[in-house]
Amino acid sequence: MGTAMAWPLVDNGWTVHVVGTPLDDDIVEACQRTRIHPRLKRSLPATVHIHHCSELDSVIAQADLVVSGVSSPGIDWMAETLAKRLHSGQMLVGITKGLRISDDGKVIVFPDLIASSLPRRLKTSLFPAAIGGPCIAGELAARRQTCVMVGSRDSTTAKTIAAMLGTSYYHPVPTDDLLSLEVGVALKNAYTVAVGMAYGMHTPDEAGMGMHNPAAALFAAGCQEIGFILNLLGGNERLASALPGAGDLFVTSVGGRTMTLGKLLGQGIPYEQAEQILAGVTLESVQIIREMAKAVHSWQSQGRIGPADLPLLRTLIAVIVDGKPTTFPFSDFFKGA
Amino acid sequence: MGTAMAWPLVDNGWTVHVVGTPLDDDIVEACQRTRIHPRLKRSLPATVHIHHCSELDSVIAQADLVVSGVSSPGIDWMAETLAKRLHSGQMLVGITKGLRISDDGKVIVFPDLIASSLPRRLKTSLFPAAIGGPCIAGELAARRQTCVMVGSRDSTTAKTIAAMLGTSYYHPVPTDDLLSLEVGVALKNAYTVAVGMAYGMHTPDEAGMGMHNPAAALFAAGCQEIGFILNLLGGNERLASALPGAGDLFVTSVGGRTMTLGKLLGQGIPYEQAEQILAGVTLESVQIIREMAKAVHSWQSQGRIGPADLPLLRTLIAVIVDGKPTTFPFSDFFKGA
Repeated sequence: MGTAMAWPLVDNGWTVHVVGTPLDDDIVEACQRTRIHPRLKRSLPATVHIHHCSELDSVIAQADLVVSGVSSPGIDWMAETLAKRLHSGQMLVGITKGLRISDDGKVIVFPDLIASSLPRRLKTSLFPAAIGGPCIAGELAARRQTCVMVGSRDSTTAKTIAAMLGTSYYHPVPTDDLLSLEVGVALKNAYTVAVGMAYGMHTPDEAGMGMHNPAAALFAAGCQEIGFILNLLGGNERLASALPGAGDLFVTSVGGRTMTLGKLLGQGIPYEQAEQILAGVTLESVQIIREMAKAVHSWQSQGRIGPADLPLLRTLIAVIVDGKPTTFPFSDFFKGA
Repeated sequence: MGTAMAWPLVDNGWTVHVVGTPLDDDIVEACQRTRIHPRLKRSLPATVHIHHCSELDSVIAQADLVVSGVSSPGIDWMAETLAKRLHSGQMLVGITKGLRISDDGKVIVFPDLIASSLPRRLKTSLFPAAIGGPCIAGELAARRQTCVMVGSRDSTTAKTIAAMLGTSYYHPVPTDDLLSLEVGVALKNAYTVAVGMAYGMHTPDEAGMGMHNPAAALFAAGCQEIGFILNLLGGNERLASALPGAGDLFVTSVGGRTMTLGKLLGQGIPYEQAEQILAGVTLESVQIIREMAKAVHSWQSQGRIGPADLPLLRTLIAVIVDGKPTTFPFSDFFKGA
C-alpha cells in the first residue's frame, strides 16, 4: 500500500522515493532490478525511486511529505524512526490501521502516538495525518476510482495533503476529526472478521444457498456498532455509514485478506490454530480486537457502556481473545435501533 | 419471497396458506403437483398450503396475519384487493420494496398507501406493517440466519408481528419508525444499481485488478445519501448504517438481481436498451429512481436541498430517467461528511 500511494503523487508531478523497512530487502531488490513491484505486479512509474532502509536519513531529509506505510506491528519503530528525522516544514501521513487502548480506556490512534514521540520543536508545527477509506493497493496502482478521507488534528494539514494526493481517480476528503476516521477504519478491520466468519460457516444446502443473509446481518451489526462507538467517543457517528465505516467494511469484505481469518474461524477452527495456518500474514484485525477487549472492559467498569452493548464486538473478543467457539447472538443485535 | 416467509411461520407452529396472484398460475400448479417450489428449489413444509388466486377470499377470511408479497407494479392491485377483504382483528405485513412521491414531494410508503385504501371501519384498528432488511428468499427458506426490521405506525402491531415471525434463524427487530424503514430499504435498491455499475465498468488490467475500490466508494456514497434523506424526512438517519441501509445494500450488492441492471449500465449500455435485455425482470430499482427524480426536483424547488446535495442519486436519475451516459462525480461525494 505504501508503494501504491506513489501513483497519485507521481500523477500530480511529485517525485517519489520509496524506502523499504529492514524487512523489505527482497522487495526493494526486486523493484530495483526489474522496475516491477512484485506484489502490485505492475511497472513502477519513472519518477518513483526505490531505496533500501539504509538510505532513510537522506530520503526523509529532503521530503516535503512523508507517507508512512508500515504495518501495525511496526508502528512503535516507525514513531521512533520518524521522531529522530522529521524537521519543521514537513508533513506526515500514515496509512497503518490500528489503535491502542490506555489503562483508563482512552483510545489512542496511531497519528497521535507518533505525535507524542515527536520532539518538542515539532509539536506545534507538525500534525501527523492519516488516510482511511476503501482502497485496495493494487486497484489504486491501476488508477481505479475511489474516495478516501485524510484526517489530521490540524485542518490545514488535512486539506494540504488531500490536495497533494487528489487526482482524477483518487478523491481524498479532508477532515479534522482524526479520531473518528482512525477509529472507524480500525474497527472495520475487526468487524470484517465477523463477515468472513459468516461465509466460513457455510454448510451444503439442497438448493445451493449461500451465506449472504448472515454476512449482511453481521455487516450491518458491525456498521451499527462502529456508529455506537464513535458516538461514545464524542466523534462523528455519521462516518459509520460513509467511507471509514460502511465503505471500508465493504471493500475489505469483498476484496481483503482479513476475510481469510474470518472464514477459518467460521469453519470452527479455534483462533490459535487459525493463527498458525496464517503464519506470516499481518493480522491487524486481531491486534484491534485485542485492544478493543481492553476498551470494552474499561468502558463497562466506568459505566460508560452496559453489558448488553456491543454484542458483536464481544463475540469477536470471545473468539479471538478467549478462544471460545463461534456463536453469534443475532437476536441481541440492533436493540434500540 | 412471499413463499419463503412461510418458513419462520411454519417453524413457529402456524399453518400457512400461500395464494398466487393471477400471474402465478404456473408456479401454483408446480407447487401443488410436486410440493417443490420451482424458484426456491426446495420442498414445501407439510403445513404450507398452496392456492390459486380464485381462493383468495376464503383464505384471507380465515387469516390471522396476511403477508403481502406482491412485486412493486402490483401494489395498487394489492391495496384494492385487501381493502375489500380484510376484517377487524387481522394484521397485515408487506415485503414489497418501493415508494411513491406526491406532487408536493411527500414520500408515500407502501403500507401507508394500503392504509389509505382501507375502509373507515379498519382505519383505527389495522396498521399495515412492512418488513425490510437483508434477506434473500432462498436463504430464508434454507434457514440461514438473518436480522430484519418489522415496522408499523403502531408499535404493538410491529411487536406482535415480530414475535410471530421470530425464530432461531430469523430475527425481526420491531420499530414504529415505518417511514425510515421503508425509505431505507427502497433507496438501497436504487443505490445498488450504482454498485453494479462500478463492476460493469471493469476494463482489463495488466495486474488483473478488479473494481472493488469504485464499488466501495459508491456503496459508501449510497449509505451516506440514505442517511441524508432519512434526516431530511425527520427520520432516524442511524438506520443508514444498520439493517435497512448498509445491511440491505450489502446483501443486494453481493447476491441480488438488481446488480444485473447496474452491470449492463456500467458497460455503457443506455437504460432503454438495458431494459429490453432484462425484459420480464421486475426492476424495483428503476421505479424507485423514477420516483426519487420527482422528489429531488420537488425538494430543490422548495429549498429543502441544494443543487450539490445527493450527487449520486442525481447520477442515477441522469442515467435511468434521462438516458445519459454514465459518469460518477466521485469528487462531489462526502462533502461536509
